[in-house]
Amino acid sequence: MNPLTSPLLTDLYQLTMLQGYIDHEMHEEAVFEFFIRNMPESRNFFVSAGLESVLEFLEECRFSDEEMSYLDSTGRFTESLLQYLRQFRFKGDVHALPEGTIFFPNEPVIRIRAPLPEAQLIESRIINIIHYQSLIATKAARCYLAAEGKASLIDFGLRRTHGAEAGLFAARASYIAGFTGTATVIAEPLYGIPIFGTMAHSFIEAQKNEKEAFINFALSNPGNVTLLIDTYDTLKGAETVVETAEFLKKREITINAVRLDSGDLAELGKKVRTILDDGGLSDVNIFVSGNLDEFMIRDLFEKGAPIDGFGVGTRLDTSADSPYFDCAYKLTEYGGEPKLKKSEGKATWPGPKQVFRTYEGAVMSKDIITTDSDTKDGTPLLRQFMKRGKRLEGPRPLEEIKHYTVHEYGTLPLDLRGLEKSVPYPVEISDELAKLRKKVEEKLP
Amino acid sequence: MNPLTSPLLTDLYQLTMLQGYIDHEMHEEAVFEFFIRNMPESRNFFVSAGLESVLEFLEECRFSDEEMSYLDSTGRFTESLLQYLRQFRFKGDVHALPEGTIFFPNEPVIRIRAPLPEAQLIESRIINIIHYQSLIATKAARCYLAAEGKASLIDFGLRRTHGAEAGLFAARASYIAGFTGTATVIAEPLYGIPIFGTMAHSFIEAQKNEKEAFINFALSNPGNVTLLIDTYDTLKGAETVVETAEFLKKREITINAVRLDSGDLAELGKKVRTILDDGGLSDVNIFVSGNLDEFMIRDLFEKGAPIDGFGVGTRLDTSADSPYFDCAYKLTEYGGEPKLKKSEGKATWPGPKQVFRTYEGAVMSKDIITTDSDTKDGTPLLRQFMKRGKRLEGPRPLEEIKHYTVHEYGTLPLDLRGLEKSVPYPVEISDELAKLRKKVEEKLP
Repeated sequence: MNPLTSPLLTDLYQLTMLQGYIDHEMHEEAVFEFFIRNMPESRNFFVSAGLESVLEFLEECRFSDEEMSYLDSTGRFTESLLQYLRQFRFKGDVHALPEGTIFFPNEPVIRIRAPLPEAQLIESRIINIIHYQSLIATKAARCYLAAEGKASLIDFGLRRTHGAEAGLFAARASYIAGFTGTATVIAEPLYGIPIFGTMAHSFIEAQKNEKEAFINFALSNPGNVTLLIDTYDTLKGAETVVETAEFLKKREITINAVRLDSGDLAELGKKVRTILDDGGLSDVNIFVSGNLDEFMIRDLFEKGAPIDGFGVGTRLDTSADSPYFDCAYKLTEYGGEPKLKKSEGKATWPGPKQVFRTYEGAVMSKDIITTDSDTKDGTPLLRQFMKRGKRLEGPRPLEEIKHYTVHEYGTLPLDLRGLEKSVPYPVEISDELAKLRKKVEEKLP
Repeated sequence: MNPLTSPLLTDLYQLTMLQGYIDHEMHEEAVFEFFIRNMPESRNFFVSAGLESVLEFLEECRFSDEEMSYLDSTGRFTESLLQYLRQFRFKGDVHALPEGTIFFPNEPVIRIRAPLPEAQLIESRIINIIHYQSLIATKAARCYLAAEGKASLIDFGLRRTHGAEAGLFAARASYIAGFTGTATVIAEPLYGIPIFGTMAHSFIEAQKNEKEAFINFALSNPGNVTLLIDTYDTLKGAETVVETAEFLKKREITINAVRLDSGDLAELGKKVRTILDDGGLSDVNIFVSGNLDEFMIRDLFEKGAPIDGFGVGTRLDTSADSPYFDCAYKLTEYGGEPKLKKSEGKATWPGPKQVFRTYEGAVMSKDIITTDSDTKDGTPLLRQFMKRGKRLEGPRPLEEIKHYTVHEYGTLPLDLRGLEKSVPYPVEISDELAKLRKKVEEKLP
């Protein structure tokens, strides 16, 4: 069983509910929507990501013989349910925000329409995929905006992501949010994302001295020379780089960059820049890493640090200041009847929905959430991506998604682009939707 | 390529460093140690987890033809490196803290001894595995201690874990830390962890009314009846449970529990308890979920809430108040020479190390970190688990690990068991280790 593709990567209650649906022949069409309930204190907007992984999952989701024989062996389920699962294929419709779309609380990110058991079974994994990729795309967007196009950004987070798939998803989500690439090798063969990396401190420590380590590295990787200079003393390291450059010049090898991974990066960055410039190495870039996030990036630029690139790791890939969003995948219609829940603090809006966004010039000015059958001024944000289980278009190239995402940043009101909490962006509920809710609530017991 | 087992789930710098090591014939034995640099504000101790996954990874780690042909196609590496990778097998020694061991900053959790390129290549994935599983075991330990044995704890977090593997790892790590089970189905066939779950709000909403939903569910899952009662109104829901119980009694079906997922859980829990008791359902347990963590658990018990079980999800599985630990995997010896780095704020202790723990009665009183060749009073914490690439023993049953972990909690000084920050537990550096560091530093350029 491969947990990345297994339909058993789900909550048990999906299966116990299915037992009920199958027994009571509840096969009518249901609509579920995924949305985020509220905006965390440390965010002003969200960036959608993960749709491609969801579509792949829906296309491929089926129970293997091994999985079926496990389910059978548990004795929990009737033969009718096992029969249903054996034949399970997702045959529903999917509407969603294209990846890279900016969105706000209560706006549906993905909407599934399918017979109730089908739409129910896929819940856990859909949330698992969309939540994390959107979490990271949103954090990466903040890093991108903080860098203001003055430096390249590389995802360095694999080692501290929460497991393997998070490493992959983080590489992808940060890339579509504007990053230049990742250190995670497997992201290149799997997604075609550019990869970057040169050396760790161990490479330096294992050799006689820093200079020998630098030379050995450059001779072995002549096209990719970034030298890590903080193992013993950053400024001495920079001087050693100048000496090394002379030696390498005779062999026609160029040093691309130095990397600093500790200490006061603004202060050291300036001093290193001077040492390099004085040594005739003004073409050598300065790359920094170590506990970076959007605030550190802004801070370094405010201090005038001459930095050309950032390796952003742990705090990006764990979205450390907001490690989860309060999101849900909720039933909004069953058998043609709009549905909602009233649970305290977690009430939902009934019925399938659409979001219309209006602009003033190039900048977004207001969103309105309304019923799917309604039309408002502005651009509808949700588009159809799957019909009766078939994709309507192939995967979008990542470069295209990135281009779209970065364009989306340009449509944000200036306040929302900043790192501090801004006045919330206006998202209205339409009269039609408000009336529908009232009508549904009145009918409840 | 399966990212869960692929050796390409690594940082590019591992491969560029290997190019250097291979070119310069640096095959001598190296020692690397994984440790956590410091104690987060919101933790008093760590619980080790993930060793079993690391040992499996080390046993199985090899490059497939597909992976080799990708590496070849990049043009980044020489034929000698490709040849090395084609034949790669981990043949080193592994010493580690047994899973479930309590540990503190700077104490090695795992120590790898192998030829330099081997020990280097596996770095990223070893950190990725041990960091996350220990992160979750540590958070789960706090939940377990807060519950004081008065309630069962179930992992509910899959939907908001960071990707698929985090869901799996969280189920495993929380189980060995004392949880009763998880909602994540695949954890049962893969790990043998007990799974739990019944229904979501959608199950209620899709049916004519709550009572019909309860009855339909119970008829379909007669051995597993936990009813979710907060979809519309928690107290009315509890009354409906009493009515449903009468109906089900005739069919000899018993209701095990009700679940509350919103609102003031202490207040509602008490009222629900009264309604159930008055309705003759004093055997029906109350299970709660919704944004729980160790503080909420303590708070609910302090308020006298009559709660029998907790579904702990998002905040556990993202370790929300401390979503990462500042950890590292560092070279401590190469070719028989002890090594260290001096980087500001990230300096390391040289040489292979052991930790000795002394006890006063049953309670731990002091740890001392010393060189591996040294012996101190107390119990040595690191044990050997792998020799020349072969495991010395099979996987430990999870029940056995859990038993050991819970026993470990009993050895914690009382202060450290609490949720608030305590005075740090005393961890000393031995004179031998301090001398070694001085000696190594003196030799540095």
